[in-house]
This record gives sequence, structure tokens and C-alpha cells, in this order.
Amino acid sequence: MALVEVRPPGAADPGAASGAPADDEAVVVRFRSDVVVELVRAAAADADVASAARVSTVGERSREVPDAAALAGLITFLMRERHGTPFEHSTFTFYVKAPIFVWREHMRHRIASYNEESARYRVLEPEFYLPGADRDLVQVGKAGAYTYQPGTPAQQALVAEGFRSVCTHAYGQYQRMLAGGVAREIARGVLPVTIYSRAYVTMNARALMNFLSLRRRDDRSHFPSYPQREIELVAEAYETHFAQHMPLTHAAFLACGRVCP
Amino acid sequence: MALVEVRPPGAADPGAASGAPADDEAVVVRFRSDVVVELVRAAAADADVASAARVSTVGERSREVPDAAALAGLITFLMRERHGTPFEHSTFTFYVKAPIFVWREHMRHRIASYNEESARYRVLEPEFYLPGADRDLVQVGKAGAYTYQPGTPAQQALVAEGFRSVCTHAYGQYQRMLAGGVAREIARGVLPVTIYSRAYVTMNARALMNFLSLRRRDDRSHFPSYPQREIELVAEAYETHFAQHMPLTHAAFLACGRVCP
Amino acid sequence: MALVEVRPPGAADPGAASGAPADDEAVVVRFRSDVVVELVRAAAADADVASAARVSTVGERSREVPDAAALAGLITFLMRERHGTPFEHSTFTFYVKAPIFVWREHMRHRIASYNEESARYRVLEPEFYLPGADRDLVQVGKAGAYTYQPGTPAQQALVAEGFRSVCTHAYGQYQRMLAGGVAREIARGVLPVTIYSRAYVTMNARALMNFLSLRRRDDRSHFPSYPQREIELVAEAYETHFAQHMPLTHAAFLACGRVCP
Amino acid sequence: MALVEVRPPGAADPGAASGAPADDEAVVVRFRSDVVVELVRAAAADADVASAARVSTVGERSREVPDAAALAGLITFLMRERHGTPFEHSTFTFYVKAPIFVWREHMRHRIASYNEESARYRVLEPEFYLPGADRDLVQVGKAGAYTYQPGTPAQQALVAEGFRSVCTHAYGQYQRMLAGGVAREIARGVLPVTIYSRAYVTMNARALMNFLSLRRRDDRSHFPSYPQREIELVAEAYETHFAQHMPLTHAAFLACGRVCP
Repeated sequence: MALVEVRPPGAADPGAASGAPADDEAVVVRFRSDVVVELVRAAAADADVASAARVSTVGERSREVPDAAALAGLITFLMRERHGTPFEHSTFTFYVKAPIFVWREHMRHRIASYNEESARYRVLEPEFYLPGADRDLVQVGKAGAYTYQPGTPAQQALVAEGFRSVCTHAYGQYQRMLAGGVAREIARGVLPVTIYSRAYVTMNARALMNFLSLRRRDDRSHFPSYPQREIELVAEAYETHFAQHMPLTHAAFLACGRVCP
Repeated sequence: MALVEVRPPGAADPGAASGAPADDEAVVVRFRSDVVVELVRAAAADADVASAARVSTVGERSREVPDAAALAGLITFLMRERHGTPFEHSTFTFYVKAPIFVWREHMRHRIASYNEESARYRVLEPEFYLPGADRDLVQVGKAGAYTYQPGTPAQQALVAEGFRSVCTHAYGQYQRMLAGGVAREIARGVLPVTIYSRAYVTMNARALMNFLSLRRRDDRSHFPSYPQREIELVAEAYETHFAQHMPLTHAAFLACGRVCP
Repeated sequence: MALVEVRPPGAADPGAASGAPADDEAVVVRFRSDVVVELVRAAAADADVASAARVSTVGERSREVPDAAALAGLITFLMRERHGTPFEHSTFTFYVKAPIFVWREHMRHRIASYNEESARYRVLEPEFYLPGADRDLVQVGKAGAYTYQPGTPAQQALVAEGFRSVCTHAYGQYQRMLAGGVAREIARGVLPVTIYSRAYVTMNARALMNFLSLRRRDDRSHFPSYPQREIELVAEAYETHFAQHMPLTHAAFLACGRVCP
Repeated sequence: MALVEVRPPGAADPGAASGAPADDEAVVVRFRSDVVVELVRAAAADADVASAARVSTVGERSREVPDAAALAGLITFLMRERHGTPFEHSTFTFYVKAPIFVWREHMRHRIASYNEESARYRVLEPEFYLPGADRDLVQVGKAGAYTYQPGTPAQQALVAEGFRSVCTHAYGQYQRMLAGGVAREIARGVLPVTIYSRAYVTMNARALMNFLSLRRRDDRSHFPSYPQREIELVAEAYETHFAQHMPLTHAAFLACGRVCP
């Protein structure tokens, strides 16, 4: 995380080069290059997968937890044979702060529950995502299978200038409209998609594995995916929590090429 | 619960009247008149509803739990205004034993996760639902708004005879086919829908309220429902657990006429 | 389809051997060994997949249909890369008659719409599924990967006897309870799961491919499935209609190992 | 629709007052104040609702269409009694162009299928929503039940200036980054949420009624909603098509207070 307060534009500020207007000088915006993912609650355990699965074969006795080796074997079997439903009796709730362009992708995942900060009900804070120094900036390859390469210093400056200039100017206009009595839901129209928004996200382990299979790039994946790096940051954080709470399920997910059952 | 072992047919057995065949004599079947609902796990709390809801209006500070009065007020507001999503960040997992005709209705609820005993993978046990003495047997009124009245002693005998005779005969034929090497998935074709089956069911509080609104009859309901009594037994048990874990949400659900938000 | 009216039991009737009771003599039940699948409506075309997919890359011009070769190429690309959403803008509605044990499996598919005949609202007809002569009766192999072999003549007789005896007896008892004034929803408890029920089923092409991937056995499948033969009959009929209305999509589905995108 | 080409800023241009930077002069952006909704395909008819509903009560004969009066009566009954599933066997596919802030709300409707223009795969066009002269700008009342009043001329100017200045500057920076070789998925971070995006949307009639109940304000609604005006524009267009294809269903929806069954 790199939280930087920016008061543009000063003479030495790259933002100045892009001509941010004079009346933006009083606008204070913050930039950072990370996402925030906190686990609010996990109600998830490998043993529960076994209980749910074993009701089909042993009925009443499904509540008895098998020993560790049998549990691992069963979970791997379910994952490999794509018996997905036993992985649904679990739930992860996350508190996430991410830019709007990430939320736009995230909410395409429909087997999930969301509650997000509302720009109709509150004034959004002046916090914006800015690609960090380690973010590749140049796209190569063809649609559907892009790879990315580092930007040149000039490209990095171009991005920093562009983001700082636009975010500062947009937030200034947002404040100006609000101060003039314009409704929040209208004024927010000028805010760029790189502004941060917060939400609670709840998914079960099966939906989470589907998310992970699509939103992380891993050359060992049976079906490769090419997610945008910023949603992949969210996915990486999710996966860490997932692996901690359901280690056998996570191991089986990896062993089966990250194919969601 | 009334668990009765029946070894039909003896001279004094009502099953005999219906002519259960001679080779059913060795079949032992059990009857009961209840359903089993056990809460496996609840990850549910009123405070979580508030957190999810308040992220829209207070963002970062949504993690602070409001005081009890504010919490109750907020939950009632959400319920009344039909803001349903904050109720989704919760989960109830139940272990349920119920007759197949109940499962047939239950599984029409698609926003839920199920794993059920499989008659392809195991031999079902000879346990059958038989309407108890308190179960009304006679339907009056028109389609969509039926009410039920107690049966006469003759009707009660008719039902008892019918169920005992058919279940005993069917289970006997099931065993006979299995003993003859016929696949379980074929032999089960003769089992009546009153046979019990077990499953794990997971729902979030919003889906659960939808289930409760449709599967319990309550004259105070804003939109009355006319569920079959046997699935209502399941709903009653669900509602008890729901009320225990989310008392404010449950109270608001009642106050708002059992309308699922 | 083999529709047979059976009036058991006569001296020569195999049902007699299993001791169907005397008072079943007046019961007329029908047996058949097929399922009925009729396409009510398809609103589905390969070109629509292209439109939906191309909006992401060409925006406004997505309404222009590409030529046949480009269309086939695009659809194959989408299928292989598992871009599933473009396949959702389509819909198939089927009228299906199948035994209840098939519906039990079918309705586990939650991304679908169902309306089924109700045994609460009407008296079910005395029509039952009976495995046909070509139905393998003996299960071999281990759980999750069963195969089936033909039954011996003795096993075939055992099944025919069992089904005929139980269905006849159960339907007789059902009628007897109804005649005695017992509610339909109670009386139906004795009906075996092999009784037919009718429903309308609507699915989009993506959900349909998921169904087909799980409910048909095909050795060329990337992820093999081991469905029960009777639901596979439904799947086969669905697939015929699917292939007729979306031939390029179907070809791509096969080419990609029947993996639902 | 008011499509205006804007080449800011000139001396007399209100955008100039907000100090849009000098290097934005070459940027051409377009503004409009409407949304585009085109019906791509409707596979929807009142008679289909009846067929699906009647399978529960008349089984095989459900394919016979009842006469007009009976059809209207049945549909009203289903709507009033909240039997929602018969309304699912239908589908509407729309091509929609709307600002991103509308899509953000729209895609919270999860029982729907979407394919949207991708800012990763293509360069977004410089077309932006600007509130029209008839758009109320001032919010009054409390959260959850806002109403809106016209803005003063000064407020209208404030909004026009703000939107024009920010959109022009942002699109200029977007182009500058793209010209510098920066990946589209990064450069788009600066685009404001008022930019237009196109998508295909498919919903069945039940999901559509849920959308309409939440996304149109109507004082006759049983459960009032307070949607943002811009998504209401989409809803109005949807409702026109819905009423044309399913007039009886639509009439029943109105008669029942716009409560989604």
C-alpha cells in the first residue's frame, strides 16, 4: 500500500504539465496502488464438505467426520469428478475496498451477495487508485490472451500525470457541484472509474473457486485466464483466506488445475 | 415424533384389510409422523445486517455496530423498504430428514444449496412418513386457498391402511429386486414419495425469509400462503433457529407481515 | 415408446406371482419405457451468440452478423476460452413428461425455470415408467463411475413384476383414499417415484450445455459423467433440439469435449 | 435525445470558467441526455404463462390455450397470489446504451444475462451522458425516500460546466495515454462514470417485473421505490416493450400494485 496525499499542482509536479486547471489547486485527493481485503467472517471448513458429500452415500452417518487421510481423499475425488455442490455449504464474507473498475468486473459474478457504498446516499471520498511502479503498463498479444510488460519511465509519467490531473479535476468539480446544491447522484457522474468504493462480498466456497479460476492467472491452470491485474489483487487476497480456512479444498483445487467443480 | 415399527400383516393389523401380499410378511418398515431439522451451523447475526447496509451510507465506518435501538430501527427500515441484500451476508446450514414429497417442494427454492441422500449410491432405509393423528385429512375450499379439516376415524384408518400396505409392499419389492442383483437406481423406482430422505440445506437469511413467507401459513401474512402441512413442519423448525440467531431481523419480518425483503 | 395397459393380476400375469392383493384387480395402470420431450419454443440462434460477444469488442457494430466462417470461429473461440455469458441470450422451453425420479435429478439444476404438474391440485394419472427391454439392469464398478450391463431374463422378470405389482397396488390405494374423501396431497404419499409427471422447463443455451455435460455419458467428454439412463433420455432429446437451433454452438460444444463454457 | 458535439473550451464556453486545460482543445466529445433501448428479441406471450401455470392443474391439456377472459383471469390470479414461476418461461433481449453509473445499478440484478462493451478490449467512444434540461437536480427528503426538484439556472450551468470540463479533460488524457502506448485497461481508469457503455441484457418476464418494480417510481406501487432517474429511463423503455408483448401480464402487474410475483 502506498498512500500518497497529492496537492496538485506544484511547479515540480508532473500533473502541472497536463494543465490541471487553476481552481483545482485547493482540491486534496489521495492516491494508492493497492486494494483492501479483510475477512469479516468465514463459516467454512473442509470437514463440512465431507458431511454434505457423504449424506448421499451414508445418510445419517454423514455427521461423523472421516479421518484426515480419508477427508483429503474424498475432497480430491469430489473436485476431480466435479461434484460441486458439497462445496456450497460454506460462506466467506469480505470487506473490500477497490476501484470502481474492479467492482464492475467483480459484480458480474452473480452467485454472490454484495452491498456497496452508494454515491447516491453519501459523498464519495477523494481516494483513487493509481497504478504502482510494479504494474505493467503495456499490453501485448491478442484479445483473450493478453500479456503485459513494464512501461517505460515516460509511460509511467504519462499515467501518473493523467490520473492525477483527471482525478483532481474531477473531484474538484464534484465538490463544486455538491457545494452548489446539486444532488449527489448527479454530481458523481464526473467521478472516474478509478475512484475507490467499499463493499461487503459474500460467497460460498464453490462460487469463490469459480472467481479464483477466472480472476487469477496461473500457468498451471487447466483453463488459463487473463484477468486484469487489479481484480487479481482481490483474488489473491481471497485465495489466502480460502487456503487458510479450507486447506484441503484449496490443495485439491490446485491439484485439479484450478478448475472450479 | 411417533416412531412405530410395523411388521404387517397380522390378523388384527389394518394393513391386512388391504390385502398386503403374503410375501411382504418378512418386510420390516418404520413409520413416523414428523420431520427432523437440526441446525448444523449458523453464521448469522443481526449486527451483520447493519454492517452490510451501512456500507452504503457510511462506508468505512460500517464496521462499527450501532447500539441496540439504532440496530432494531435500521433493520425494520430495511425490511419495510424491501432492501433485501443486507440480509444475504449470513448462512444457515440445516440437516433435514423429510419425506421425498417434501423435498420435491423444497428444492423448488433455487437460491439454496442442497446435498441429499442418493438412491443411486445407497439403499434407502425403510422409514416412511405417515400422517399423525393431528394431521387434518380433508381439503376444503378452492385451489390456491385450501383449508384442511380433521378426518373421520374411518378416513384415518383408510390412510393408515393405505400407507402401511403400500410402503410395506413397495419396500419388500425393492429388497427383492436388490437381492436379485438389480441396480439400486432401478429398484428404487417402486419406492413411494412418502419415504424419508436426508439432506443438508444451506440458505442465507434472505432466502430463508422467502422460504418462510411461502411455506408457513399465518393469517397475519401480508401475502397469505397455503403450504402443505409437512413442509410447514420444516419451515417451523427453520424459523425457530432463525429467530434465535437473528431476533431483530425475525421481529422485523413479523412486523412487516412476513414479506421477504 | 411402449404404452401398455395392464390389468393385473391374471393367472398368467407375472404381477400375480408377487402377490398383488385381490382388491387391486379393478385398478388400471399404464406402463411405458420412454420419456416425452417436446420443444415448445426456441428463441435461440448462433448469430445471437456473436452479437452478444462482439458488443465487448466492437460495441455498436455488434448487430452486424459476421459471415459463416467468422461466426463458427468466434463461437469456437468463446467455447474453448470458456467465455460463457454470450450463450445465455437464448432460451429453450420444453414440455417434458418423465418419471418423478428423473424430475428429482432434473430440478437440482437451478439455473432453469420449471412448472410441474401438482399432486396437490390434481389427481395424478396412472402412468408409470417401467424399464424397457434395452435398459441395462446391473450396475458394476465403483461409486461415481458406474457402468451398467444387461439383466438376465430372471432379473427382467423381477423388475417387471416388482414395478407392476407395486404401481398397481399403490395406485389402487391412492384411488381408495381419494374415494374416501382424503386430500390429494395426502393420498399421493403412496405413489412411487416411477410415476410420470409433466412439466415445462426453460433453460438458456449455457444452462442447457451444463445439463448436457452432466446428464449424458460420452466417452469423448473432457470431464466424464455417469448419469442415470432415464435422465439421459431427456438430455438426448434436448440435445437434438439444441443442435438443430444452434448448430455451430453445438459443434463447438462437441469439439471442446462437452465442457460447458 | 440531444446529441451535442462539444469542442471546449472557447471564450464564451462555460467550460472555460472551470479552467479546462489548454491541451484539451483538440478533444472532441459528445454529450446526450438519453438512453438507448432496443428490443432485440422477445420470446414472450401471455398464453405461455397460462400453459406453464396450467400444467400444475390440468397436466397434458395445458397446451390448450384458454379463451381471452379465462386467460386474463388466470394471469391476474397468479399475479395476485404471487405464483411467480409461470412468468419465467419467456425472454426479452435488449440492446441498451446507458452511462456506466446506470450499468452499475443494473448489474445488481443477478437473475439476468449481460454482455457489455469492454474497456479492456476496445477504446471507448467519447460519448457522455449530461443531465438534460428536464432533469431535476436538487434532492430533498431523507435517505430511502428522496424526491427531486428542478435546479436553478445557476445549478444547471454548474452541472453543464462540470460535466463538460471533466469529460473533455478525462477523454483527452485517455487518448494521450493510449497514444503513448499505455494499455486500454489502464488508461480507462480516468474515464468518468457518466460515459456511455453498450450491452445486451436478457431477462425473463418475472425478473423484468422485479426490475420494473424497483426501478420505476409510481405512486400506485404497493411498495414504493425511489430509483435514480437515469435507470428509470431504461425501465420505462423496457416496460413499453413488456406491455406490448404481454399485455395481460402487464395489466395484472399494474392491477396488483406493481408487486413482482
